[in-house]
Amino acid sequence: MREFELLQHIYSTAGAPSQRVLLPPGDDMAMVSLTGRAMLVAVDQIVDGQHVDLSTTPIELVGRKAVTRSLSDVAAMAAIPIAALAAATLPRDFGQQRATALFDAMRETADRYRCSIVGGDIAVHLKASSPLVCSVMVLAEPGPVPPVTRSGARVGDGVYVTGRLGGSLGPDGLGRHLTFEPRLDEALQLGRALGQRLHAMIDISDGLGRDASHLAQRSGVQIRIDAHRIPCHPGLDWRVAMSGGEDYELCFTAAGDVPHRLGELPVTLVGEVMQPAGPHGPLVLVRDGAQTFDGSQMGWEHRS
Amino acid sequence: MREFELLQHIYSTAGAPSQRVLLPPGDDMAMVSLTGRAMLVAVDQIVDGQHVDLSTTPIELVGRKAVTRSLSDVAAMAAIPIAALAAATLPRDFGQQRATALFDAMRETADRYRCSIVGGDIAVHLKASSPLVCSVMVLAEPGPVPPVTRSGARVGDGVYVTGRLGGSLGPDGLGRHLTFEPRLDEALQLGRALGQRLHAMIDISDGLGRDASHLAQRSGVQIRIDAHRIPCHPGLDWRVAMSGGEDYELCFTAAGDVPHRLGELPVTLVGEVMQPAGPHGPLVLVRDGAQTFDGSQMGWEHRS
Repeated sequence: MREFELLQHIYSTAGAPSQRVLLPPGDDMAMVSLTGRAMLVAVDQIVDGQHVDLSTTPIELVGRKAVTRSLSDVAAMAAIPIAALAAATLPRDFGQQRATALFDAMRETADRYRCSIVGGDIAVHLKASSPLVCSVMVLAEPGPVPPVTRSGARVGDGVYVTGRLGGSLGPDGLGRHLTFEPRLDEALQLGRALGQRLHAMIDISDGLGRDASHLAQRSGVQIRIDAHRIPCHPGLDWRVAMSGGEDYELCFTAAGDVPHRLGELPVTLVGEVMQPAGPHGPLVLVRDGAQTFDGSQMGWEHRS
Repeated sequence: MREFELLQHIYSTAGAPSQRVLLPPGDDMAMVSLTGRAMLVAVDQIVDGQHVDLSTTPIELVGRKAVTRSLSDVAAMAAIPIAALAAATLPRDFGQQRATALFDAMRETADRYRCSIVGGDIAVHLKASSPLVCSVMVLAEPGPVPPVTRSGARVGDGVYVTGRLGGSLGPDGLGRHLTFEPRLDEALQLGRALGQRLHAMIDISDGLGRDASHLAQRSGVQIRIDAHRIPCHPGLDWRVAMSGGEDYELCFTAAGDVPHRLGELPVTLVGEVMQPAGPHGPLVLVRDGAQTFDGSQMGWEHRS
């Protein structure tokens, strides 16, 4: 596999150059333009055997997920993606054809969300047995509201989730964790609809329990979730829906009225932001009838 | 190894927050401010066994190189670094202590060049035998001159290199490829001294031969290099100096007078930008007495 030729292929097949891209790939750095003077950045990795399984996952879905995972971070800030960079270390026996298909899928996915891939780096493992590692860095700029952080939740806010949760990883390894839509448009709609009332937001990658605990910890609050309100995918228990992860839906807190739908996507009130529970209290409290559970740990159980 | 704890350590020990960093690490994305509305980006990877050798290289130098490689790309554009993101996939048995030392070294190196690490991602390989992969994305903004690309070389320009070349990889695996200084300040000095006469630039990572061929190819010219002018490290033949790589010195083309030194660093005229040699001619022609060589290939030899 010739790394230089692969990079050339990627550069030469890049989509129509966006007006945003002042210097396209192929130099020591690429250059993009902003409409303001603030830039958001994040990076995510996928590793074969952990986030994807190359033995069963079509390579197009591997490339897709490498990009959509990072775009989900952009959605979580209610920001607008501008450009991305992709770096991959490929197994020795990966082959030119699969490498090209991987990068084509990354480029097509990024283009679909108006986010040009402006740079990259390719390395090849010495051994065939070393797994694919693919990292994607995404650049974004603020949308209709200032970036919505994890730290802005206020006592009394409603806690909401978009879509339905749970079961993203199918028994065959496929499923929604590969095909989810990053909620970019929906996050911008939320920003426009709620303005400054949209207090805190995160995308659900670790599971609603852990991700709500990130919100709670960063905001210095407790989050109470009502188990019966959690919008589970059909046939799933709330415990599965809360702990499964890789939903890539949005969890946000807001004051006042919130739309019940964003386009086709339902928005569900699942709980409330509470006073912090003290140093030993749970960050996330799940209420199921008369029982309460520590939702950030799910192992800890408290009978009220 | 707890990935979340390691990230917390990295975030909590981050240097004094720069005024540049509007949102520090710890959210879905970080936010930085620019002085203008253009942003440069690049990504580079290091893989154990290829760019470093964990069995012999002190971990501090691994972290250092992961960052300085990307900063060398910033120097090659005569740009100013702003911030960086780091993503790593660690071998299963890497250990918390080494992981912390790796990220501390990355952070300290980045801070030294006024380039805060504002985000990151950590994954752990399933197997102890899978190699460390570490990618660093760097953000920069234009310096005193517009970014100096690879494509601006003009016929008649002088071709220059900074410092001395060759022997960066010592017989013990250590050496300058681990300890080099990215030529950030020197590139800015060049920009200020030469202004629009600084036509094209690249950092020498693949070796002067290959990197000059990148300049020539992107600029649509031929580059002639005079072998006896190449500033080799003591005791090295020009062939070694041209093909060794990982010098991370600058190679640039410019019109008119050029300073002989940038601070302590020598600047050497090594050749000239020529008319292109046609579709089958060499991109880089090395002249050694009466002989000429294809410097971009080094295997091809033409006796004049």
